Amino acid sequence: MTNQLFVKMVLDAWFTQVKEATNLFDQLSNDQLQQEVSPDRNRGTYLLGHLAAVHDRMLPLLNFGEQLYPELMDYLNLPDKSMTKTINTDTLKEYWMNINATLAGRFNDLQVDEWFQRHNAVSAENFLKEPHRNKLNVVISRTNHLAYHLGQLVLLKK
Amino acid sequence: MTNQLFVKMVLDAWFTQVKEATNLFDQLSNDQLQQEVSPDRNRGTYLLGHLAAVHDRMLPLLNFGEQLYPELMDYLNLPDKSMTKTINTDTLKEYWMNINATLAGRFNDLQVDEWFQRHNAVSAENFLKEPHRNKLNVVISRTNHLAYHLGQLVLLKK
Repeated sequence: MTNQLFVKMVLDAWFTQVKEATNLFDQLSNDQLQQEVSPDRNRGTYLLGHLAAVHDRMLPLLNFGEQLYPELMDYLNLPDKSMTKTINTDTLKEYWMNINATLAGRFNDLQVDEWFQRHNAVSAENFLKEPHRNKLNVVISRTNHLAYHLGQLVLLKK
Repeated sequence: MTNQLFVKMVLDAWFTQVKEATNLFDQLSNDQLQQEVSPDRNRGTYLLGHLAAVHDRMLPLLNFGEQLYPELMDYLNLPDKSMTKTINTDTLKEYWMNINATLAGRFNDLQVDEWFQRHNAVSAENFLKEPHRNKLNVVISRTNHLAYHLGQLVLLKK
């Protein structure tokens, strides 16, 4: 019961942030997403690609399968100004929706106890010493990551 | 044991964000904190006051006692541009440190089970139906709130 409650608390926070970000991406025009969040900073469309990439990488990290769109990796590995091959904003929005829907499906399938198993970036040996490095903890840290960039994206609103 | 692990996961995320914000406030000069995070948006010093106010309000919300600095309330209730009586940045930094240190002390004193008790913005009656509205959940949501504004404050760095 308590484990279930805890999982709910963490997932509620995740879904709240994903929903806020999705609503914001819907509100912003593609022109607005082409703007920088502050002078000489990342453009909205880059942050959209970056967030999609980080969420896509959660699939292998949580042992849910392969990432859906390996072409997003530049949005993880390169800064905005160094990108030579960008993906158009509408496609990024579609990726964003599909990735989060896929994650939501896998989250819902997961049994409560499975959330407390290790994620794939920690070895079985280290996990014995650091049991907090479990799948649910990945969701906590990615929720904060999303909130961080959401605070920037909201600056694009008129 | 598992409850203890949950609490650790949530508090680790909280302390990580508080530490990052504190390091950032230390790095930024008072001149930088006077700047807006993006044109016509909040100034850094306002966001510092706002975060201090939100954290200060956690004291009564979590039943830890009265808020330390009621003079911060304008940073919750008024937008930056409507403030008539601001507090100077060095004082806000001092408040920020004291408030977070006070919270840390109270967090450390709390027994694991007490984290799953209701916070003061939910009635005993509603808490029966919504047991996720506990003290630990306040920390989850305030951590996301901090990350959101941290993403904005980092734009002030040179």
